[in-house]
Amino acid sequence: MPADLTTADPLAFGAEGGLFRRLRDASGADWTGYTWHPFVQQLSAGTLPLPAFQHYLIQDYLFLIHFARAKALAVVKGESLQAMRDKAAAVLAILDETLLHLKYCAEWGLSETQVTQIPETLETVSYTRWVLDRGLAGDILDLEIALVPCTVGYAEVARRIMADPKRMVAGNPYQSWIESYAGEGYQSMAEAAARRIDALGVSHGGEARFASLLRDFSMAARLEQGFWQQGLDAAGLAKTP
Amino acid sequence: MPADLTTADPLAFGAEGGLFRRLRDASGADWTGYTWHPFVQQLSAGTLPLPAFQHYLIQDYLFLIHFARAKALAVVKGESLQAMRDKAAAVLAILDETLLHLKYCAEWGLSETQVTQIPETLETVSYTRWVLDRGLAGDILDLEIALVPCTVGYAEVARRIMADPKRMVAGNPYQSWIESYAGEGYQSMAEAAARRIDALGVSHGGEARFASLLRDFSMAARLEQGFWQQGLDAAGLAKTP
Amino acid sequence: MPADLTTADPLAFGAEGGLFRRLRDASGADWTGYTWHPFVQQLSAGTLPLPAFQHYLIQDYLFLIHFARAKALAVVKGESLQAMRDKAAAVLAILDETLLHLKYCAEWGLSETQVTQIPETLETVSYTRWVLDRGLAGDILDLEIALVPCTVGYAEVARRIMADPKRMVAGNPYQSWIESYAGEGYQSMAEAAARRIDALGVSHGGEARFASLLRDFSMAARLEQGFWQQGLDAAGLAKTP
Amino acid sequence: MPADLTTADPLAFGAEGGLFRRLRDASGADWTGYTWHPFVQQLSAGTLPLPAFQHYLIQDYLFLIHFARAKALAVVKGESLQAMRDKAAAVLAILDETLLHLKYCAEWGLSETQVTQIPETLETVSYTRWVLDRGLAGDILDLEIALVPCTVGYAEVARRIMADPKRMVAGNPYQSWIESYAGEGYQSMAEAAARRIDALGVSHGGEARFASLLRDFSMAARLEQGFWQQGLDAAGLAKTP
Repeated sequence: MPADLTTADPLAFGAEGGLFRRLRDASGADWTGYTWHPFVQQLSAGTLPLPAFQHYLIQDYLFLIHFARAKALAVVKGESLQAMRDKAAAVLAILDETLLHLKYCAEWGLSETQVTQIPETLETVSYTRWVLDRGLAGDILDLEIALVPCTVGYAEVARRIMADPKRMVAGNPYQSWIESYAGEGYQSMAEAAARRIDALGVSHGGEARFASLLRDFSMAARLEQGFWQQGLDAAGLAKTP
Repeated sequence: MPADLTTADPLAFGAEGGLFRRLRDASGADWTGYTWHPFVQQLSAGTLPLPAFQHYLIQDYLFLIHFARAKALAVVKGESLQAMRDKAAAVLAILDETLLHLKYCAEWGLSETQVTQIPETLETVSYTRWVLDRGLAGDILDLEIALVPCTVGYAEVARRIMADPKRMVAGNPYQSWIESYAGEGYQSMAEAAARRIDALGVSHGGEARFASLLRDFSMAARLEQGFWQQGLDAAGLAKTP
Repeated sequence: MPADLTTADPLAFGAEGGLFRRLRDASGADWTGYTWHPFVQQLSAGTLPLPAFQHYLIQDYLFLIHFARAKALAVVKGESLQAMRDKAAAVLAILDETLLHLKYCAEWGLSETQVTQIPETLETVSYTRWVLDRGLAGDILDLEIALVPCTVGYAEVARRIMADPKRMVAGNPYQSWIESYAGEGYQSMAEAAARRIDALGVSHGGEARFASLLRDFSMAARLEQGFWQQGLDAAGLAKTP
Repeated sequence: MPADLTTADPLAFGAEGGLFRRLRDASGADWTGYTWHPFVQQLSAGTLPLPAFQHYLIQDYLFLIHFARAKALAVVKGESLQAMRDKAAAVLAILDETLLHLKYCAEWGLSETQVTQIPETLETVSYTRWVLDRGLAGDILDLEIALVPCTVGYAEVARRIMADPKRMVAGNPYQSWIESYAGEGYQSMAEAAARRIDALGVSHGGEARFASLLRDFSMAARLEQGFWQQGLDAAGLAKTP
């Protein structure tokens, strides 16, 4: 059973009443279906089959490359020198993360050659290119709204797992994955990302554009659902656990 | 059984030895799997279930909107005044086609409200946004290579159907769809599109860039396969007929 | 002496209180310096030296090519099917206008070869590429704000000339140029463009983004000033008449 | 008198017969007019008036912001993971350089407030937005050809100054500026940039696209000339010293 959003405030990032939190709450089942997807629940319980995780990990590697491109597009938008610096640093951090992913994949029995020769799935292509297209079509706010469900959502996923009564703590094979997102570093980065959305909402007319921004925020959340789901599908598991 | 590519020259567009035909031939099973997909064979035989066609038609409507955007991106590339004029006219033609689609959908029992409220599938999102992204990342040749499998492929689909011994001529419910692509208007437009690729190949280093262009051409062909397949999936049909 | 903005309401396009008119009024001297530039006053009085006009005409031809590209970028933005259709039609109209320009140039003693071999000036490069960049960096509202001072400004220029007591009516060598912008066709198109800005202002947070939009609107007006001025400079005339 | 290109091989970067050197040599007077501009000669001789240098420095600060955006666009192009990393690092390096520029400006009597409130000149707008537009219209090769004359040209400027018999060594007020580009760090970075062009020339059809690439390379060189010249103009100096 998904954690209940009405008692979910400790899970949420960004300021109360700020644009990020308003979008998160308004996206309802799209958001909870992403942040408490069966894939996540099985990660928490330590019951996720290895092939599901391996499939996910490889596609996430391919995802990160295009996610870095989308962050670079935010630099192109040139909203402020500070934003340009932050986003350029994020590009480098993501590209470093791809190297870690390859190392991680190796620990899970996947060689670099295997990983880089596997083609992108429809789930990966649709999500990444949709984000890039939002950046081509829209302004910095549109682009960051398309980017933020990934960044902050993973931090909420970690919080949900930490609060999960069914969580397997000792011997969970996915413990290091969970810790990397539950850690202070990732959590405070996510909080900053949510606050950035709040600020852009004020400066870029978030109130008047709310319906359109919500459409994109929800779309990203559904694309994230599909991204988890492909792992379960690859392991021959149906969506409902 | 797919038409045999070795005897398939009458099916092919563009000049012998030109870039288009070289890409088509080199893409092999990706191309035949697209232009002689079970969906197409069932269109030809008149056996395609209506729900499969309806699903396809609605997604094709949504596809065309973003395909028009990608053609507009070719205008932005500004390669020549003539190319800009041709592509801008193509944008208008595609946008007119969307209106015809809505009328066509109505004939198939789908109201405009139904059509425009149905969300894009992963197959539609991935294909359209991937094309747009090739235009953002690459030059006019990269963009047109991503666009051309759709334009010319549908003309080849029509040729294959016209040559199909299993084709249902009298009473085929999909006859008007077939005729619109088999007609002189569409066929000559497709030939011009293939010749345009040949010319861009010469002016924009197609020889040196062949491996990269083939990767994109084949990707588009596979995305087209997925686009047909979603129709069969929606009607509960497996890929192998 | 420039026409007085406080009594200038008959000159203005768009709804009272709408975004276009608010930007126009707030841009102050940048706007009047553009729409009542010495070049315009000399067009009105029929005293503009031919070399100034010829220089302007050639650069305007080169300008239109990139202006058409920027309109195509508005199609890429894909804000609505109607907006896409309107902008694609505008691209074709502008590209037709370039042909008229070549014919017009011929009447003024400039062959097509001369026109197309003349390089773009800094004034032309800076204005056109700045507009395209606003479209890359921003959303549809940012792009249209960068485009609209040209479209509506020329209609206001024509109104100002029609109301100019110093206007030379009989024998003005620039009469046909003036009439093309004073005519009902151009004037109503300009009114529609201003109303479009008003509507985008409402839907895309124009109120919250006003300072940033005004910066761009004023920048375009100053780039238009430079565009006229290059004609006077080419004819060896200083800015103050 | 400009250094003679026929004996200029020690000045040139990139491999003999490589794309960079071929473009440099073919751009002829556009290139020498940039790399041995009177502004540069006066820097070398230590005779450049301070107001000319101050004007240049401020515009160069504004230039760098958009140059960083264009480098980020190269990341978006996503040609390879290595290229993405290199360009993202370059974005951060350039943004750091803007901070140094502000410090440098302060030493020359220009406060940060002064610098950031000065508007971009036509020379700055046209150059930077033209580069960004080449990136929007073209592929990674087109974009890097638009970027490289700045990167490598400054390294050649430094070499020319070091070889200049009229160079003022002791007491040259611009010594630290000269040293920053003559230093090993900048020189080897420039060599890598030229080699990168050579490699892209091979992989992206540089031979077939040579005429178009040369047009852009020469355009960038002329825009660089205009960039130096604005400094002399600001100090009331004519182009010919």
